[in-house]
Amino acid sequence: MIRVLVWNEYQHELSDERVRAIYPNGIHKAIADFLGDEDISVSTATLEEPNCGITAERLAETDVLIWWGHMAHHRVPDEVAYLVRDAVLSGMGAVFLHSAHHSKPFRYLMGTSCNLTWRETNDSELLWVIEPSHPITAGIDRVIRLEAEETYGEPFVIPTPDKLLFIGHFSGGEVLRAGCLYERGNGKIFYFQPGHETFPTYHHPDVQRVIRNAVRFVAPTYRQMTPCPHVRFITDEEPYVR
Amino acid sequence: MIRVLVWNEYQHELSDERVRAIYPNGIHKAIADFLGDEDISVSTATLEEPNCGITAERLAETDVLIWWGHMAHHRVPDEVAYLVRDAVLSGMGAVFLHSAHHSKPFRYLMGTSCNLTWRETNDSELLWVIEPSHPITAGIDRVIRLEAEETYGEPFVIPTPDKLLFIGHFSGGEVLRAGCLYERGNGKIFYFQPGHETFPTYHHPDVQRVIRNAVRFVAPTYRQMTPCPHVRFITDEEPYVR
Amino acid sequence: MIRVLVWNEYQHELSDERVRAIYPNGIHKAIADFLGDEDISVSTATLEEPNCGITAERLAETDVLIWWGHMAHHRVPDEVAYLVRDAVLSGMGAVFLHSAHHSKPFRYLMGTSCNLTWRETNDSELLWVIEPSHPITAGIDRVIRLEAEETYGEPFVIPTPDKLLFIGHFSGGEVLRAGCLYERGNGKIFYFQPGHETFPTYHHPDVQRVIRNAVRFVAPTYRQMTPCPHVRFITDEEPYVR
Amino acid sequence: MIRVLVWNEYQHELSDERVRAIYPNGIHKAIADFLGDEDISVSTATLEEPNCGITAERLAETDVLIWWGHMAHHRVPDEVAYLVRDAVLSGMGAVFLHSAHHSKPFRYLMGTSCNLTWRETNDSELLWVIEPSHPITAGIDRVIRLEAEETYGEPFVIPTPDKLLFIGHFSGGEVLRAGCLYERGNGKIFYFQPGHETFPTYHHPDVQRVIRNAVRFVAPTYRQMTPCPHVRFITDEEPYVR
Repeated sequence: MIRVLVWNEYQHELSDERVRAIYPNGIHKAIADFLGDEDISVSTATLEEPNCGITAERLAETDVLIWWGHMAHHRVPDEVAYLVRDAVLSGMGAVFLHSAHHSKPFRYLMGTSCNLTWRETNDSELLWVIEPSHPITAGIDRVIRLEAEETYGEPFVIPTPDKLLFIGHFSGGEVLRAGCLYERGNGKIFYFQPGHETFPTYHHPDVQRVIRNAVRFVAPTYRQMTPCPHVRFITDEEPYVR
Repeated sequence: MIRVLVWNEYQHELSDERVRAIYPNGIHKAIADFLGDEDISVSTATLEEPNCGITAERLAETDVLIWWGHMAHHRVPDEVAYLVRDAVLSGMGAVFLHSAHHSKPFRYLMGTSCNLTWRETNDSELLWVIEPSHPITAGIDRVIRLEAEETYGEPFVIPTPDKLLFIGHFSGGEVLRAGCLYERGNGKIFYFQPGHETFPTYHHPDVQRVIRNAVRFVAPTYRQMTPCPHVRFITDEEPYVR
Repeated sequence: MIRVLVWNEYQHELSDERVRAIYPNGIHKAIADFLGDEDISVSTATLEEPNCGITAERLAETDVLIWWGHMAHHRVPDEVAYLVRDAVLSGMGAVFLHSAHHSKPFRYLMGTSCNLTWRETNDSELLWVIEPSHPITAGIDRVIRLEAEETYGEPFVIPTPDKLLFIGHFSGGEVLRAGCLYERGNGKIFYFQPGHETFPTYHHPDVQRVIRNAVRFVAPTYRQMTPCPHVRFITDEEPYVR
Repeated sequence: MIRVLVWNEYQHELSDERVRAIYPNGIHKAIADFLGDEDISVSTATLEEPNCGITAERLAETDVLIWWGHMAHHRVPDEVAYLVRDAVLSGMGAVFLHSAHHSKPFRYLMGTSCNLTWRETNDSELLWVIEPSHPITAGIDRVIRLEAEETYGEPFVIPTPDKLLFIGHFSGGEVLRAGCLYERGNGKIFYFQPGHETFPTYHHPDVQRVIRNAVRFVAPTYRQMTPCPHVRFITDEEPYVR
């Protein structure tokens, strides 16, 4: 059983009727609803909960964390972001969605600004599969078609991805490395661009499939901080790690 | 002085009036004309020359090889392709243009099929800069605009590039990893997608600039096959390489 | 069920008593013996069989090919090497062992010389785990200790591995990138250095474990050449692939 | 002229006679002394200076920052580490030496713990060149021999380097990815392992050569934060960036 925690800042849905109309119970609940499966159990957390609903204990029992945030990145305390970062380094999988490119946990794991260009003009998007044999793109045809999305464009200031799985093509002219896979410490990280709050992107079956695939792919089989001990001679009779 | 050899199969220009109208002396001469500079000397070679105009001696005196081919890839003998591959491994830089993605030297260096999808419908292309600080993109604004190009699309079956410098956005909907940098052995390799023979792409100042930048970037400072000797003990008094 | 084909040139065992004493039925049989498991079925092939025991049909029914060769690389016809390369590009997993770094299929997939330095002086080797959370290193402590191995040393002329899993430390002073993971086309490739024919390396439980882990990791979930069609407009009413 | 700033915490040299005997004016002065050249100007800064001797203005006029720290990493304020990180993202080159693997600027740029194993038993070290054609290894033979160094060992919890230039072989048995190259934002970063304070490592001509090579390699040709503007339609008559 893969234990998923879906984190959402849950702000737009409360303050903006248009968003609430699409996600009446919040983006986190929409994601939790389509994710739950016989091998996946889901819980949720939001910004307004104590400590953002994040504790070291809760992360220790989380296999994969999904993160959506946008207008309130700065309200996530550094301490919470560090808990997430360290859980990833110890093996927890993480999926960062859409505007979470600018979230603290993602930026702290990448080490870069994670800036990109953007425009809100209801462009349509074609999300092209770059690696058709990768488990995260399994079941997706050559391209995912989204009628409307926020436009994100290059340069996207990230480290070169270990593996680039999707490139987004926006009708207004931009492109984006839209599906980026990383390994950091013992954790796998997937950034996936679709999901602006004013569009029903998380109701799209292909987007749901990619996120479900990603959950299964980044779920850990190994979970601990890598031990880096002060060592004795490897040739000692005694154990060489103390 | 960087010694460049521009290789072109030189077939379309002889058999197709439209192409000849754009490149009256061949694509190779057009490239040679804009490349020549105070620090760059250029010569050319074509398919119909003896041994394709390629010998081990000539490659040994070449710093950077530029390759354009399309309809006659199969007419380049394997022996010539191996000479090119080995020269790259020994440090010679190589720039493969447009349909040279399917040339023997490029495929033998990549180890993959280098297949991609394509369409000839006069799409316009936007070539986005992914890495604005890279020497190959120096002097290019955020994007290069091409009024018409052959459409190339993903999946492009190549090894993950060491560095992705451009992504192409085609008006008909496709995207392509259009500027891909590799190191193989001691040689640097740059693949650059623009340049269909029926369009005046190599007359575009930004395309010329990228190719000129690439020549300077892939030119070697070290030129020999890596020595991998049968070695003696490193702790010997005597030299440890024999 | 993962269908493994173990290929061995099977020459040293027939001509050298010392090798036959260690691997009386050949290295291929020794590997087949420890690999067989409830989820792994194994068959073998050798150089002297017709067409080296390799056909397109047989590879189509092979999930993972393991390759051991040394003195007879040149006796494997190019056509056989191309069959292997193309099967890997279509998704078949491949594990190249020890001196197979110089085999035709490995070199053709890498695109480089795959040269390295070497010495036969019975050095002991410490094989260090670089990525403790990777499935291929699962169950291995920090290091594998081999009493004697042929010494392999850098420079090893390969493309930068997608992931480096082991580094070998030889008592005579050398180091080697000893466990290297690649993706090419739809196939995963693992190079693993231990296994000189005059030492009982494939009887070592940790070496066996790594090879078994590798078989499970490189086994494909997707198996076809990536289709790269000549496409129509994506916006057509009709199917956009023809 | 490449403007280098050598930063050293400068603690061991003041408190430990053995270290002072080797580096009477501090490690920073020893590095500054051998680095200065006709194309390289050097200044220094240390922990006890106001704000660690680091300001945004000073970094803006620095092409390459060299960093040595060990016992006082925690005394570098986060604000100073952020200044360094952001300067690197804007293009400043950075060379992190030895125990600076645990410095705040390096860890914040990597996003990982940067932990490694270690032992202080006067092992000798062989530093093997992995990429003989790279500008940073220019002029170095196959290996650098250090009579004594602190032992550093894998696992070293870093992102996979863009390019691995050296592997260290320690006489006690360990190995380390000892020369690691990264690009982050517009900046190049080189980590180089040798340089324990109790050994005269920075007096070794090959170590000096590598650091000098690295300074020239990571020095920027482009220096600004990547602009990621809120964009208008690219097809507008008006400028598409606002």
